Amino acid sequence: MAVAAVNKPSRTAAREKRRQQLIDATMKCIGRKGIGGTTLADVAKEAGLSQGIVNLHFQSKDNLLQETLRRLAGEYRSQFERTLKQSGPSPADKLLALMKLDIKPSICKPAKLAVWFAFWGEVQSRPTYRKICDELDRHYDEVVEGLCAEIIADGNYRNVDASTTAMALNSMTNGMWLSCLISRKNWDRKQALAAVQSYLSSSFPEHF
Amino acid sequence: MAVAAVNKPSRTAAREKRRQQLIDATMKCIGRKGIGGTTLADVAKEAGLSQGIVNLHFQSKDNLLQETLRRLAGEYRSQFERTLKQSGPSPADKLLALMKLDIKPSICKPAKLAVWFAFWGEVQSRPTYRKICDELDRHYDEVVEGLCAEIIADGNYRNVDASTTAMALNSMTNGMWLSCLISRKNWDRKQALAAVQSYLSSSFPEHF
Repeated sequence: MAVAAVNKPSRTAAREKRRQQLIDATMKCIGRKGIGGTTLADVAKEAGLSQGIVNLHFQSKDNLLQETLRRLAGEYRSQFERTLKQSGPSPADKLLALMKLDIKPSICKPAKLAVWFAFWGEVQSRPTYRKICDELDRHYDEVVEGLCAEIIADGNYRNVDASTTAMALNSMTNGMWLSCLISRKNWDRKQALAAVQSYLSSSFPEHF
Repeated sequence: MAVAAVNKPSRTAAREKRRQQLIDATMKCIGRKGIGGTTLADVAKEAGLSQGIVNLHFQSKDNLLQETLRRLAGEYRSQFERTLKQSGPSPADKLLALMKLDIKPSICKPAKLAVWFAFWGEVQSRPTYRKICDELDRHYDEVVEGLCAEIIADGNYRNVDASTTAMALNSMTNGMWLSCLISRKNWDRKQALAAVQSYLSSSFPEHF
């Protein structure tokens, strides 16, 4: 009994570690070859494992891709929540920290963005992908809109609508991901931050 | 001679018409099945032609996809130039017309956006795709930046940078495409326009 109790979590941990290793390999392959060009054999090779192991853990390319998108969205969501928790107490601090998160080199880099865009390129034909992306997007929208609403109330801003401002901010940072992916040599991270900050300060002059 | 002179353009026109028909079919297939899921057989079926005809005109899936992206970019560019020509004479009129173009139902609709995102999902592994997208993007950026610079000079706006404002505007409209694709039911075209207009009027209060 005692042995089983020790073994079980460690076996689960090993299984989880292997799955994560395969998902990391999948992200690398998608970044290099796109979703269409990625095969289970590529993933196995990238992970240094046999294709049998990939089949054992994920059964099919569809399952593996779906799980990869869930992890990608989950990773982003964790960083998002951590940023909210760790940033200064005021809504303005939190809003700026969230915007900076999207421009951070660890998130806004072609290798990572290529994986996002590869999945977005498939949402039209894969309702599950759309659902995962949509849930993350809505959560992001809600939080940003809530922060905007607090800032509007605090500064008594007239003619500023929280929902419209949140839409503008979210669109702006999403669009920056595209520019970073497409024009990577000319994409200027400092200017991207300046663009976000100038929007914030023109919307909420007392706060930014 | 006279016959040849008549025949030649008509043969070229027929060839061009057939190529366009196949490219239209490709866009439809990509919109429904993604790039990876689209085969030459699907394209032939969608166009109501034989796969031999697809091979005759494009030789390979790679060629067909590249030509499809060129047409997609070319179509967008034509609409962009037409909008510039047809909109009111002032730079503010032109800028607003360009922003509205990106939110128009004929451009900003899931079936069309799915094709753009499918190609963007592949730029990391296909330098030719990136080059085509990058050229279009730069042209867009240059025109928008030029219009912003004219508005800034005209309004003598201080603390507004043309290049940063253009980056913010372009990012905003690109990000709206993503929201329209992902959250199509909840995506609000009127609010998207309101977001762009509120940004324009806070940046250039004398002009918008």
